[in-house]
Amino acid sequence: MSYFRTNIERMSGYTPGEQPKDGIYIKLNTNENPYPPSSGVLNAIKEAINENLRLYPDPVATAARTKIAEILGTRPECVMTGNGSDDLLSIIIRSFAGEGDKVVFPYPSYMLYKTLAELQDGVACAVDFTEGYSLPEDFIVEGAKVTFIANPNSPSGTMISPGKISKIASKIDGVLVVDEAYADFADDNCLSLIKQHDNILILRTLSKSYSLAGIRLGFCIAQEPLIQGLMKVKDSYNVDRLSIAAVIAALDDQKSMKAHTEKIKETRRYLTKSLQEMGFFVYPSQTNFVLARCMKGVSAHTLYQTLKARKILVRYFNLRRLDDCLRITIGTREEIDILLKHLKELVGTTHSKTVPTCYH
Amino acid sequence: MSYFRTNIERMSGYTPGEQPKDGIYIKLNTNENPYPPSSGVLNAIKEAINENLRLYPDPVATAARTKIAEILGTRPECVMTGNGSDDLLSIIIRSFAGEGDKVVFPYPSYMLYKTLAELQDGVACAVDFTEGYSLPEDFIVEGAKVTFIANPNSPSGTMISPGKISKIASKIDGVLVVDEAYADFADDNCLSLIKQHDNILILRTLSKSYSLAGIRLGFCIAQEPLIQGLMKVKDSYNVDRLSIAAVIAALDDQKSMKAHTEKIKETRRYLTKSLQEMGFFVYPSQTNFVLARCMKGVSAHTLYQTLKARKILVRYFNLRRLDDCLRITIGTREEIDILLKHLKELVGTTHSKTVPTCYH
Repeated sequence: MSYFRTNIERMSGYTPGEQPKDGIYIKLNTNENPYPPSSGVLNAIKEAINENLRLYPDPVATAARTKIAEILGTRPECVMTGNGSDDLLSIIIRSFAGEGDKVVFPYPSYMLYKTLAELQDGVACAVDFTEGYSLPEDFIVEGAKVTFIANPNSPSGTMISPGKISKIASKIDGVLVVDEAYADFADDNCLSLIKQHDNILILRTLSKSYSLAGIRLGFCIAQEPLIQGLMKVKDSYNVDRLSIAAVIAALDDQKSMKAHTEKIKETRRYLTKSLQEMGFFVYPSQTNFVLARCMKGVSAHTLYQTLKARKILVRYFNLRRLDDCLRITIGTREEIDILLKHLKELVGTTHSKTVPTCYH
Repeated sequence: MSYFRTNIERMSGYTPGEQPKDGIYIKLNTNENPYPPSSGVLNAIKEAINENLRLYPDPVATAARTKIAEILGTRPECVMTGNGSDDLLSIIIRSFAGEGDKVVFPYPSYMLYKTLAELQDGVACAVDFTEGYSLPEDFIVEGAKVTFIANPNSPSGTMISPGKISKIASKIDGVLVVDEAYADFADDNCLSLIKQHDNILILRTLSKSYSLAGIRLGFCIAQEPLIQGLMKVKDSYNVDRLSIAAVIAALDDQKSMKAHTEKIKETRRYLTKSLQEMGFFVYPSQTNFVLARCMKGVSAHTLYQTLKARKILVRYFNLRRLDDCLRITIGTREEIDILLKHLKELVGTTHSKTVPTCYH
């Protein structure tokens, strides 16, 4: 006999990318920033490590929300912070979708959206992206309580224009969550849509452009009534004292973030071009990774395994439309050069002859 | 029109105790430890502030769970960490109770249990404690999916014996969550019950005895099948790198924790005796706070307000069975002496004549 709800019992949970415990890998699999946070940011977090840690944090993280609002040009009342974007996604699904409710997201995208729908015992509606990763006409599902769009999308790296997102927000029944984890690497974003639409929630994170994946800090921007309702659902003290110090310092140091982002975009252009020259198809990326489709006769899974054996981790998804692709995080130029050296060697080999299958 | 689920729309959310932003209060309202974490613990957290913050934490916090298991005498597979106990409580309710499911807890206790039931659109069954804060015969509710017992209980400070908890675990249908946030201040605990009962989950936290409320770190101990299921429901990276460093260092420093705990227990005896001598009824406390019931003719609410005006914060609950009580966190001896000085003055005044009601 199981004590668990049947929806929990039958689901398998979300599997994050590998996080090897030793540091010997070139890690290009979970879209972390290759550049560390600035020493100014690290020092600001260190300063928050004092005897006040015996006290609870501010439950509504006022100082953090004030700083976020200042940087984004909105009001603190339109901002909520979370223990990473994942915390905010959980709060959002619990706020708007109950058992049997429809939850919509494109496919392939961030697989957590499906997990979140399953956790609520909702009806997960995955609608296929077109071949070119735009949204099909039938993307709007009548009666959907929550529609998720990662924009730019992972794992494709592609982007839907704010104009198109705005049209979707106008047409759908429930709320539209625009997950902008990668927005700082993109040419545009949907922040300005908040003013026009009372059903849009924008998510941002410190994990990618701000080099602070280890801290867990995400934030949500929406019109005030939505934020007020979400506040009822969040844990009282969901963001700790050090994360509050970190987000304030990180947002204050726009210069470091933008310098890192520019370097990553430059390396992205270089990696894209190099992969194309080798024969990969590379989806146009607005993120800190690229999705590269292997040429005919080359097994993405074998490439992934061989690179891993050589201590280079990239992301492989054993899923429809993705199983012939590798998702590669933009590392430093040096890391990408090492990757390319190995890929050239391997694709030369695997491309010219059949990959041997090993039976153990 | 509201986009929120109706259960979310109609609920009011949990209200945590006041967290004043200035530091000028003697803060005896949210059961924080008056003694700061040791410099060893603070230094260990500082050491984790380095360029690795650009990387995600270990999703299953192996190093933390290994240390917790070592200290508690169990296996890492029987331990899960959370972003505070509240995170674990959310994960538990989502794992076991869906819409319309019964969720049981005693009254008065930690008010969050009711909020959690409402968030799931479950049926919250609050069963009154007896006058002496033991559990009544009808505490067992048939078909309950989750039963919560804070033990020692807040806000009463009282404790149910492990023997009695064991009997309840044998009789109930679903899981029994024994929330042991205050266990380090008590003479006994329920940890050993895990081996006998496949439906018990024990919760612990760094917020009270370990002086780290600002860090947000809780852990759950249960048999392996329960932990495995809960792992599917938690966010992938719910515990950050600094919290992992903190819990390892804090648990390694048992000496500091126990020294603080002993001092708090000594001050608890002193405060209890002093309050009793003034005429308060003090419930026998196994925690780092006491619940003091005011003598006839003394308004707890007025006392709370007057103390607040004098920059001393205690907790007042405008709730049945609690509205004639104050919950007072055990501060330092110095803080408690200041509190007692004011109380003596106020109770002398309010006790001897009717408290004037002020109309504004």
